Amino acid sequence: MGKVRLEAFSDGVLAIIITIMVLGLRAPHSGQWSALRPLLPVFLSYVLSFVYIGIYWNNHHHLVHTVSRVGGGMLWANLHLLFWLSLFPFATGWMGENRFSPLPTALYGVVLMMAAIAWQILQRSIIAGHGSGSMLANAIGRDLKGKSSVAFYAVAIFAAFMSPWISRVLYVSVALLWLVPDRRIEKVVAERRN
Amino acid sequence: MGKVRLEAFSDGVLAIIITIMVLGLRAPHSGQWSALRPLLPVFLSYVLSFVYIGIYWNNHHHLVHTVSRVGGGMLWANLHLLFWLSLFPFATGWMGENRFSPLPTALYGVVLMMAAIAWQILQRSIIAGHGSGSMLANAIGRDLKGKSSVAFYAVAIFAAFMSPWISRVLYVSVALLWLVPDRRIEKVVAERRN
Amino acid sequence: MGKVRLEAFSDGVLAIIITIMVLGLRAPHSGQWSALRPLLPVFLSYVLSFVYIGIYWNNHHHLVHTVSRVGGGMLWANLHLLFWLSLFPFATGWMGENRFSPLPTALYGVVLMMAAIAWQILQRSIIAGHGSGSMLANAIGRDLKGKSSVAFYAVAIFAAFMSPWISRVLYVSVALLWLVPDRRIEKVVAERRN
Amino acid sequence: MGKVRLEAFSDGVLAIIITIMVLGLRAPHSGQWSALRPLLPVFLSYVLSFVYIGIYWNNHHHLVHTVSRVGGGMLWANLHLLFWLSLFPFATGWMGENRFSPLPTALYGVVLMMAAIAWQILQRSIIAGHGSGSMLANAIGRDLKGKSSVAFYAVAIFAAFMSPWISRVLYVSVALLWLVPDRRIEKVVAERRN
Repeated sequence: MGKVRLEAFSDGVLAIIITIMVLGLRAPHSGQWSALRPLLPVFLSYVLSFVYIGIYWNNHHHLVHTVSRVGGGMLWANLHLLFWLSLFPFATGWMGENRFSPLPTALYGVVLMMAAIAWQILQRSIIAGHGSGSMLANAIGRDLKGKSSVAFYAVAIFAAFMSPWISRVLYVSVALLWLVPDRRIEKVVAERRN
Repeated sequence: MGKVRLEAFSDGVLAIIITIMVLGLRAPHSGQWSALRPLLPVFLSYVLSFVYIGIYWNNHHHLVHTVSRVGGGMLWANLHLLFWLSLFPFATGWMGENRFSPLPTALYGVVLMMAAIAWQILQRSIIAGHGSGSMLANAIGRDLKGKSSVAFYAVAIFAAFMSPWISRVLYVSVALLWLVPDRRIEKVVAERRN
Repeated sequence: MGKVRLEAFSDGVLAIIITIMVLGLRAPHSGQWSALRPLLPVFLSYVLSFVYIGIYWNNHHHLVHTVSRVGGGMLWANLHLLFWLSLFPFATGWMGENRFSPLPTALYGVVLMMAAIAWQILQRSIIAGHGSGSMLANAIGRDLKGKSSVAFYAVAIFAAFMSPWISRVLYVSVALLWLVPDRRIEKVVAERRN
Repeated sequence: MGKVRLEAFSDGVLAIIITIMVLGLRAPHSGQWSALRPLLPVFLSYVLSFVYIGIYWNNHHHLVHTVSRVGGGMLWANLHLLFWLSLFPFATGWMGENRFSPLPTALYGVVLMMAAIAWQILQRSIIAGHGSGSMLANAIGRDLKGKSSVAFYAVAIFAAFMSPWISRVLYVSVALLWLVPDRRIEKVVAERRN
């Protein structure tokens, strides 16, 4: 029961985050092409963030599927993840409005990295509550994908001050890496059923 | 179970989209009639978009009803649809604030057309996951209504640059065409029950 | 099943409406008492609207409880009600920012009246789908409360142009009249159980 | 059933409150460090309020768990709590934008105190509906934690006009006091199961 409400609240917050990000795309007062052009970077950063929130929603779905007991620690680890995800609209809007300039591009990476670390903490709190032989512990193994994402974001943050292009390529690459839902959990779930 | 969460998340996003569109209708500082008049086109575009989101919510309800297995492809096809629908508040606000002038009217059509194409993709991903003899495949048949809507939007986009009136009439006409919930699915569901 | 989704979507929209209304209460740039004082009418109109949306949420809960079959007509009657309720943030903000001056006060009444009429239509569409001997038909009887509310709003709209005070008193009075959840439905539900 | 909807609606409102607070953190037009610095107090007040709403969500979860009958009084006591919580985005934004200056810091305390009082009223309305020997009545006992929080907020409100630092320390301290989910209810629930 606690699990259902955890999921429902997270879904609610993610649905709101993904939707209010579009408020950063303000309707210009003029109806000409020239008024639309400065919105292109804002639009592109919105697309990127939409994909990221979609990935988190998707994988959150798989993650919570492995949970059988919800404790206080897990609730706060989940809220901690939602906190960093709630900063996406701000980081997205700032990066878009400043045309992917160094500092906003780096800050976007900081939010991505903190969310990825919060994800790691949430995973650990679930494993801590279910034992090292649990479904999730088997599914993620050494979690190279999760850990390397954090490393990629760290590189992207520093690269932003040299060439923001490196950061942009890294943000898109990591998103593509995660776009596929986490087969590891699906696989272990399927195996357990047999 | 995955289906319930897919539906809940989509409902959440649609509920937020339909409600934040009204934020485009900003309360003027003056309390006179003259302050209200420029809001009329914004209000009219809001009504049109409210009806469209209502139609999508209604038909999404019918569509998900035919789903028995939720796969990764379907989740992303659904997020892709939500992405285009999330641009409704922007497109609606821009068209309304610029009094249905050519470019904003055309862009509104682009968002409508992309959402309609995303709907087609979502239908195909559901049929691909359930077989060509599935409930949905029988229900939509050759899907003339869906395909002709895309064509009407395409015509409306080009017509906007000649006479935005043609586009407005087309947008309202297609909305009326869809206002009735999709009887085809209801019919096939009823037949299967017998 | 359709009933659950109807309820969930309505709850979502009502939760968003009740919460985004507070966005009309913008944080002033100065931190002095003088900056807070002009917000008082905005705050009072927010309180009134919060109570009204609370009443609608409460009674919607009772209304849907009587539903056993959800048809297309009912879905659209429900969306029609949500449409008028979605204009609450605009009407509330406009009335508050213009310190309850005549025209905004009258427009607030128009939105209240249209929502009350939409409620009547929703009730009728439910009765039409369940028969005149249905639980709801027995519960509301001749529905004097619903019909007189519409009349009070109509009086308040015209009174706003003479003395907005009359309208304010009427809006608060009708809210008090409805603050108690609809005992009629509760009573009939209880009787049926015996 | 009424309990499920009460919980779902409250979750929806809390999810929206926690997310729209971040809209107070507006993306500056410049992409320099200097543009980011004035946002620091806004960010800090956002963190504090995020934790408070998280605490309320968490404890609301435990509180509703003790409910077996939902009456009209409880619904309105719950809406009354949501009303004060809905003022968090305003109070947070005003305190943050004015760098924790006296009056906004005091007003933040007023909203915290009113929400804490509304929580007490909600608890009492639940106990009133379930008897003094109920699960909740046993769990909270004399509720020293709840009552002392109200007292701390009252002290913080007055202290804000002397030294806002005292208020800040008090707000953070009370948050830390509540950060742990209410073990008292968990304990009584566990005892009843044995």
